[in-house]
Amino acid sequence: MTHLVLVRHGQSKWNKENRFTGWVDVDLTAEGVKEAKKAGKLLAKEKIQFDAGFTSYQRRAIRTLWMALEGVEQFHVPVTKDWHLNERHYGGLTGLNKQETRDKHGEEQVHIWRRSFDIPPPQLDRDHEYHPANDPKYDGIDPAELPGGESLEMTTKRVVPYYNSQIVPFILANCNLIVSAHGNSLRALMKELFNVADEDIPGFEFPTGNPLLIELDEGTLNVTSARYLDQGRAKDLPPIPNA
Amino acid sequence: MTHLVLVRHGQSKWNKENRFTGWVDVDLTAEGVKEAKKAGKLLAKEKIQFDAGFTSYQRRAIRTLWMALEGVEQFHVPVTKDWHLNERHYGGLTGLNKQETRDKHGEEQVHIWRRSFDIPPPQLDRDHEYHPANDPKYDGIDPAELPGGESLEMTTKRVVPYYNSQIVPFILANCNLIVSAHGNSLRALMKELFNVADEDIPGFEFPTGNPLLIELDEGTLNVTSARYLDQGRAKDLPPIPNA
Repeated sequence: MTHLVLVRHGQSKWNKENRFTGWVDVDLTAEGVKEAKKAGKLLAKEKIQFDAGFTSYQRRAIRTLWMALEGVEQFHVPVTKDWHLNERHYGGLTGLNKQETRDKHGEEQVHIWRRSFDIPPPQLDRDHEYHPANDPKYDGIDPAELPGGESLEMTTKRVVPYYNSQIVPFILANCNLIVSAHGNSLRALMKELFNVADEDIPGFEFPTGNPLLIELDEGTLNVTSARYLDQGRAKDLPPIPNA
Repeated sequence: MTHLVLVRHGQSKWNKENRFTGWVDVDLTAEGVKEAKKAGKLLAKEKIQFDAGFTSYQRRAIRTLWMALEGVEQFHVPVTKDWHLNERHYGGLTGLNKQETRDKHGEEQVHIWRRSFDIPPPQLDRDHEYHPANDPKYDGIDPAELPGGESLEMTTKRVVPYYNSQIVPFILANCNLIVSAHGNSLRALMKELFNVADEDIPGFEFPTGNPLLIELDEGTLNVTSARYLDQGRAKDLPPIPNA
């Protein structure tokens, strides 16, 4: 049995301002730092010895992972940072306040963008300041691979192949893993792990700073159990397949 | 021309108490955190885009690297943590206050242990609490490779081959690198980079939290320049070979 912990970063500055963030590299608020520390404390009680950590290219998730490793006093654990675990790219909605967006595009359209599986937001031009091709962090990456706006489906199609090729080999090797990521990249992982239908996955939400501890059979990769460590702030989980 | 930054962690809790620390995984003091943040600020002024970071298995160096990456706002830089970059293992001196050690073993013997190149301290038994074979962090490593006490020469003989096999390939690929490590693992790197004689290297000391910026020719690996970023706290550097 292996352990796979999924943790969503705590409150960021733009979460607080209720703005679409996506790939903009905003930092945690003081509240977000508190949430990440709490996640570390909750994890410490589980006494899991981690073999590897994974996170995105975004500081709010990286910092959350650092604080989780600090909480379990396992600073030495190797960490892989990869842009495939980044948040969904919100394209032309990036930076907009959610209320402003509703005023501009209408309640219904915003609901579709936020809660549909396959409807992408307006695409950003290659030369837009929020297009990742203009961020030196992504210099080594083929710009054709970098999104200018994603539906949840598009996010899933980069997160799930990354999980299968880069994370699953560690599970098969019986490693205990921690992944620190974002609302929608974690939805994509949840979809894969719990085999959730396209139309159902937008209805599931990860609570922030509340680690989800999943146990997996390292032979079959089947989920055998899953629970949020802070039960008081837990959200609904999809049913465990084949349970 | 590539950039190689070497940074020594700031004050740790045992530095403050003047105890031999070595492989004991003590954390930074508040002062040490301040030094690491200052190092990050000094680095930010250089506007170097880092391609990779390296550090030890010890939290005081890992945390210093985290704060340096925070200072330059390059959280996404891949980091390799390896025990070969750990501090010199002080064996039977570990945990002793330096004055107590002088009282017990005599001023001259302590000076020899601290400032000779090839005299190891008393060796720890395999079952001693400070032997790394009893620390779960080192579980994956052949216990025969783990030291129970090292001379500076023994430290050099693990640090330099690691540098040549794991770090040099990045320099040859024209990458900008940052290494966060310890007084003696950095002495070992300095010995290699500046071709310092065995008898001279114990006389060079790295200031804490003061990044040493080295420029190297990525073809010949020759050092072309070297300077501490905080000139007010700079220590003597060995002469640059072939300069």
